[in-house]
Amino acid sequence: MRILGIDPGSTVTGFGIIDHDGGRLSMVIAGALKLGRSADLAVRIRAAADGIQGAIREHSPDEVCLERIFQHANVHSALVLAHVRGALMLELARSGFEISEYTALQVKKAIVGHGQADKDQVRSMVKRLLGLDQLPRPHDVSDALAVAICHAHSSASLKAWGMA
Amino acid sequence: MRILGIDPGSTVTGFGIIDHDGGRLSMVIAGALKLGRSADLAVRIRAAADGIQGAIREHSPDEVCLERIFQHANVHSALVLAHVRGALMLELARSGFEISEYTALQVKKAIVGHGQADKDQVRSMVKRLLGLDQLPRPHDVSDALAVAICHAHSSASLKAWGMA
Repeated sequence: MRILGIDPGSTVTGFGIIDHDGGRLSMVIAGALKLGRSADLAVRIRAAADGIQGAIREHSPDEVCLERIFQHANVHSALVLAHVRGALMLELARSGFEISEYTALQVKKAIVGHGQADKDQVRSMVKRLLGLDQLPRPHDVSDALAVAICHAHSSASLKAWGMA
Repeated sequence: MRILGIDPGSTVTGFGIIDHDGGRLSMVIAGALKLGRSADLAVRIRAAADGIQGAIREHSPDEVCLERIFQHANVHSALVLAHVRGALMLELARSGFEISEYTALQVKKAIVGHGQADKDQVRSMVKRLLGLDQLPRPHDVSDALAVAICHAHSSASLKAWGMA
């Protein structure tokens, strides 16, 4: 099973694709889509959607997952991020995917084992779980891979319990 | 010039298309896209984008405009609405449009002449300005037509000033 994980952001959107073969996880590709700081939100939205579309076309994931929006201290940033997420959800729905969503807390618990983990701890575990030579950078990329791993574990446990 | 105005909403998205021929305005079509109350946001987003896509395909507007998001009392509703707006912006950008945005205040001033107008006053003026036989209903529809008229006035004044 090939999983695309996305960490939507208003200036950078991270994505990571992993293969999940029985218990083994491996990275296919990961990257950070720079959306720019253009005042024109439509331009940034389109950069995110086009980038994800390209990754889907090239690497044909079977399942997709997104980090669920968290409450921002800054309402304006949260609203901009929600625009990007909405555009990505449209893109993914049009490509025929059901979208799974995980909160940052769920991701941290799945990857590190507790919800107090910081981004560096998540990144170290992502490196170890995927058997990477280097730490995935920037954090947008490691976070996107972490969402994909979280989804792999969640699907895997569903299968183990005979529910999927 | 044919203008598509959109009033994005999280459960209903209104749209209205008007023709602007010199000083004369007339309605081409208007409607309310019911997005449902599905827990699955991707389904609602797609209903909005597909509906707008259909209106564009059938009526070929030259310009499009959106009501700009306002600060909601309820942050959750604002975030859902922002997802819908983001998806619509992607749809419009992919269709090759530049997107004009107007705040509710700008629309009220353009239609009624002051920012304290309520939705019923806006609706009455929309009826009069477009020479309609009946009040446009629901408010999502009259608001969408109002945004389109606001854009017509704004483009018209730019042209009168030799700026467009």
